[in-house]
Amino acid sequence: MRAPLRLGVAGLGTVGAAVVRLIGQEQSSLLARTGRPIEVVAVTARSKAKKRGIDLREIRWVADPQRLAADPDIDVFVELMGGADDPAKSAVAAALAAGKSVVTANKALLARHGVRLAELAEKKGVALNFEAAVGGAIPIVKTLREGMAGNSFARIYGILNGTCNYILTRMEREKLAFAECLKDAQRLGYAEADPTFDIEGHDTAQKLAIAASLAFGTKVNPAAIYVEGISSLTPEDLEAADELGYRVKLLGVAVRTETGIEQRVHPTMVPKDSEIAQVMGVTNALSIDADGIAPITLVGPGAGGGATASAVVADIGDIARGVRTPTFGRPARELTASSKAPMQRHEGGYYIRLLARDRPGTFATISKSLANEQISLESIVQRHPGPRTHGGDDPKSPEAPAPVILITYATTEDAVRRALQAIRRTGVIVGQPQVIRIEKG
Amino acid sequence: MRAPLRLGVAGLGTVGAAVVRLIGQEQSSLLARTGRPIEVVAVTARSKAKKRGIDLREIRWVADPQRLAADPDIDVFVELMGGADDPAKSAVAAALAAGKSVVTANKALLARHGVRLAELAEKKGVALNFEAAVGGAIPIVKTLREGMAGNSFARIYGILNGTCNYILTRMEREKLAFAECLKDAQRLGYAEADPTFDIEGHDTAQKLAIAASLAFGTKVNPAAIYVEGISSLTPEDLEAADELGYRVKLLGVAVRTETGIEQRVHPTMVPKDSEIAQVMGVTNALSIDADGIAPITLVGPGAGGGATASAVVADIGDIARGVRTPTFGRPARELTASSKAPMQRHEGGYYIRLLARDRPGTFATISKSLANEQISLESIVQRHPGPRTHGGDDPKSPEAPAPVILITYATTEDAVRRALQAIRRTGVIVGQPQVIRIEKG
Repeated sequence: MRAPLRLGVAGLGTVGAAVVRLIGQEQSSLLARTGRPIEVVAVTARSKAKKRGIDLREIRWVADPQRLAADPDIDVFVELMGGADDPAKSAVAAALAAGKSVVTANKALLARHGVRLAELAEKKGVALNFEAAVGGAIPIVKTLREGMAGNSFARIYGILNGTCNYILTRMEREKLAFAECLKDAQRLGYAEADPTFDIEGHDTAQKLAIAASLAFGTKVNPAAIYVEGISSLTPEDLEAADELGYRVKLLGVAVRTETGIEQRVHPTMVPKDSEIAQVMGVTNALSIDADGIAPITLVGPGAGGGATASAVVADIGDIARGVRTPTFGRPARELTASSKAPMQRHEGGYYIRLLARDRPGTFATISKSLANEQISLESIVQRHPGPRTHGGDDPKSPEAPAPVILITYATTEDAVRRALQAIRRTGVIVGQPQVIRIEKG
Repeated sequence: MRAPLRLGVAGLGTVGAAVVRLIGQEQSSLLARTGRPIEVVAVTARSKAKKRGIDLREIRWVADPQRLAADPDIDVFVELMGGADDPAKSAVAAALAAGKSVVTANKALLARHGVRLAELAEKKGVALNFEAAVGGAIPIVKTLREGMAGNSFARIYGILNGTCNYILTRMEREKLAFAECLKDAQRLGYAEADPTFDIEGHDTAQKLAIAASLAFGTKVNPAAIYVEGISSLTPEDLEAADELGYRVKLLGVAVRTETGIEQRVHPTMVPKDSEIAQVMGVTNALSIDADGIAPITLVGPGAGGGATASAVVADIGDIARGVRTPTFGRPARELTASSKAPMQRHEGGYYIRLLARDRPGTFATISKSLANEQISLESIVQRHPGPRTHGGDDPKSPEAPAPVILITYATTEDAVRRALQAIRRTGVIVGQPQVIRIEKG
């Protein structure tokens, strides 16, 4: 039998404890699958006394992550502390520098320092694996890096944040306001006390940057991503989408264009019968469009101790089997710089919700402004705020604003912005228009 | 730069030609991703003269697959001839015996000789990869073998035959008869002239046997699978399923039970909002239930030259990167024998469609027979064959049979069979009852 693969685990929160437990439970199966016994030999965490429901008596305690990382008696450093910078960053760098492979679930660390850490790992000929950082238990990293290694990718797009998808699912199904669903998500532990990072799309952007690197060979760079969150969405938007045959999802999208790789995160209308539209609640998913074949969609749990541990242990298994792959699928020095695509360039249909004054000529004015920008309409829905009464004592002023919903054919972001400015100048609409991009299946 | 990985490709049909083309197109990307140049150096096929739209001028032609397999100037034998036995079998065995890794898309070969070939590959320390054999471009093999290596699987179930799913989709959407949809499938090239292998579930069974081996460590053995096809389904069954909140899919299911791994292929009602129910047309999918985490579903193209080539080239990429994994995820000698699970043991709800004589006491008789077998009903739908007229000149005899649809709660196959025998003996029903298993999401 080959020598055991000895793990040092840093961080024993929900995920760390689940990893230690899973490796214990699956000992014989992991041996059969990898050809090597896998053992947790040392751990570190902030508190030694905390109850975690795992037996640590046979496992050495190391006070400092940095020391654990360089410990001569471990082969693999498993970083589950989290955080974009120290102590995670120094510890991972120390482990790689000491010639140890690293497994991490830390998307923030990879998003900020991924390229430099990848260079270090490749210089040392060791693995830096991170399946758990994108889409939890879903094998997104493995699929992009290995399972579709023979393909050129045209586009990847997905639901990479369970909090947002949970909120959108509740808003759509129960016609509830955003704030109310967010509160429930917080109560259920799906959203943080400060939910900004999730609901404004930054969590999705970090994961998208990593996935785009694997798919397109770009340097991981969340700053290259146009990011828009879900907090301005209303139940009316979701209801209108439903009537038009769409669902609204917060998508991370990376797409190959003539001028480079465009990366963006924003609420998106997707056709109701698309795979991605079926993904409800906290579930995550990624669709992959590769040249010459129908899309592939991977769906599953994107977070939680068990799901994250599943991916972490699979990464450890690859190391046990001797697999060493460049971190982002190709040598770090060959990754190309990625820059922010100006959103004006985005072509595609748009959903536009306006509050229009109910007076003669309003539609003509709106239509003309759109026509001036060569924007054609696929559909128009006028929604009256309440039931109409005819020839009676209608209490509403004849100018009371009513929501108008427009669906455009493919056009540019720039044209839409200019048309809306022109419409606002005419005074036929009230307030700020809502604009949601449409992604055809 | 490392020495090129030299391929010998046997079989230049749609898939073989697509593989040669893809390797040419993706040369630089494959080099970046695997660290080695990959080259097709020799090919064999039945006809040298046939037009294939690929340039074979720089590639050596070998007349005989067996000789190509053992050719000292190739490193990897790519078997795309098909067929469970010779010439594919001998050629693959010859390549493995000569210490060459093999990539194949041949599910029939693996279903019949997989275990023996795996033993040979493992003895020689070479790879025998077959991602394309199950679910085309979908990374099902990689996910079960590597991406979820740390998990214990509870159940896998999927749509593994595009022909059947195409027919069921048409029947459901357009309320067409089975025979008509089959004809269209044949016209469009989705079904063979002799469609038995697909529509009676045998193709699904071969793929299920392979997937079950990867998930549960069973010896690949299609004979251990209970198989039922889709040819007895009617548009009425699909319509009734729709009304009850289900869709009918031909599923391959492998599930861990107290007495072993149960494997079965049969039409199944799945809840309309499940991931698997969304899979329409020729698309394939596999859902994976692992202990402790929410299901993972992989969806994509299950057949076609491009999709199959995508998986074949990914397998070649793994070999180029130096990855050698036991064929079925663990050493072949550790695989356990699998035997046919008597279907009596299957627990779950059932859809039953009867043609009942419309006379007093019919329902009482049916209910009593079910109650005698401890079968409880979730719902009953009586469907009258036409519009009813009251107090008029109804031409139908009072005993004209009307379809009755029953949905049972969890029960055993055996209890259902006994209850239906008892009902038939009473003479209140006409013809053969239709029974479809229900798989809860």
